[in-house]
Amino acid sequence: MPDSPSPAAARVYTAALVVIGDEILSGRTHDKNIAQVASWLGVQGIRLTEVRVVADDQPAIVAAVNALRTVHDYLFTTGGIGPTHDDITVDAVATALGLAVEVHPEARAILEGYYATRGGLSDARLRMARVPAGAALIPNRYSGAPGIRIGNVFLMAGVPTITAGMLDALTGTLAGGAPVLSTSLGCWVQESAVADLLRDTEKAHEGCQIGSYPFFRDGRSGANFVIRSVDAGALAACGAALSAGLAAMGHVAEPGGI
Amino acid sequence: MPDSPSPAAARVYTAALVVIGDEILSGRTHDKNIAQVASWLGVQGIRLTEVRVVADDQPAIVAAVNALRTVHDYLFTTGGIGPTHDDITVDAVATALGLAVEVHPEARAILEGYYATRGGLSDARLRMARVPAGAALIPNRYSGAPGIRIGNVFLMAGVPTITAGMLDALTGTLAGGAPVLSTSLGCWVQESAVADLLRDTEKAHEGCQIGSYPFFRDGRSGANFVIRSVDAGALAACGAALSAGLAAMGHVAEPGGI
Repeated sequence: MPDSPSPAAARVYTAALVVIGDEILSGRTHDKNIAQVASWLGVQGIRLTEVRVVADDQPAIVAAVNALRTVHDYLFTTGGIGPTHDDITVDAVATALGLAVEVHPEARAILEGYYATRGGLSDARLRMARVPAGAALIPNRYSGAPGIRIGNVFLMAGVPTITAGMLDALTGTLAGGAPVLSTSLGCWVQESAVADLLRDTEKAHEGCQIGSYPFFRDGRSGANFVIRSVDAGALAACGAALSAGLAAMGHVAEPGGI
Repeated sequence: MPDSPSPAAARVYTAALVVIGDEILSGRTHDKNIAQVASWLGVQGIRLTEVRVVADDQPAIVAAVNALRTVHDYLFTTGGIGPTHDDITVDAVATALGLAVEVHPEARAILEGYYATRGGLSDARLRMARVPAGAALIPNRYSGAPGIRIGNVFLMAGVPTITAGMLDALTGTLAGGAPVLSTSLGCWVQESAVADLLRDTEKAHEGCQIGSYPFFRDGRSGANFVIRSVDAGALAACGAALSAGLAAMGHVAEPGGI
């Protein structure tokens, strides 16, 4: 759109996430970081476009990091930055970037302070001060050991509450575009009964996507319809049109979803 | 191991999963399929090795399917096999495999029966009978529309309860290797205080992996240690050694985890 009055608004920023951990792939741990990173990125005006979950395996991490960091504005990782032998994310990311690993003096100082009353800074704990050469730190207000930023790659914790704190620390610091806005309608109807309406309403409202999410509750079929757009006006118009279309078919839509 | 008495037992079967859906990448929906597919695969003796979450976007689905189906024994997908315009998984997988899409007669008959008392089989509902040419069906005892198997690719629902039923229907039908066994120990200790013990114990027990999963609860630090192996004897020996090592350091390990 060369004659757009605000070309900057049209720039779409994308991110990818690499979730690192055998515990996710074994099914033992239910991942919570995908949803929280996705939601946080949305508020920053950055779209999470792809997620890969890989094992605690250096070649797998290196391959995922290099495939994704080169095609997205930002790459986040979660997991594998702790003090134990299975925490290999720093080494893997350094390898991916062709960088050495070094002890970050500020990270060392943070850990020395944190462990001063907790048994002292052992070799294992000092592992958490290791970073790819040239990296910056991301504050961790919960447990001392910081997250790491190197170029467009952000290394976050695996424990979701710690990652939440690291995301808080990054809020507002990354360039993003227009946030994707969304609105939801819920309806006690089988989605298959209104599939044509959904498709036609989406087509009639450029820049809007309608997602349909069926559910079965209390023995009844229903669906939530989520409309997404970066344009608040288009979003409202699309939502009104869908609601009117459902009403014309005899279905009452509940704003906000069911 | 050319002189192994049971070479078949050494064959490792791997699977990948492609989770398809804008609702996961927006953060609106917390994925539950990764963990349930992972746990189910583990019981079948198949290791979930990589997961990718991609948008409702045909090129993204095609790329993920083709990257993964060629390097794993099995590829599962979840999401995008419903009746609405955003359900594009069948077309994307057919494109990935270079196949046409056709209406499966048995799927059509299933849907005709299911919708006979639910408003009849509309064009939208008939979409759920479309399969890549030559595909087999996976029964869905909850909502009629079947899952789909084509070669080593398995298309499952996005709604977790429906996927659970489809997995049940597949139980015992896929070739697998020795299931990965696991045992857990929990301990009220900072993982960084026992990092050397964890590494050394893992090294001393070939074929065992020890994962360390820290937590903060009621103001105290603790960690669960999960040992995995396909060899029950090695697993028990490794667990006993870790428990004894923790006890020697003054830490009581709780079997099963905390």
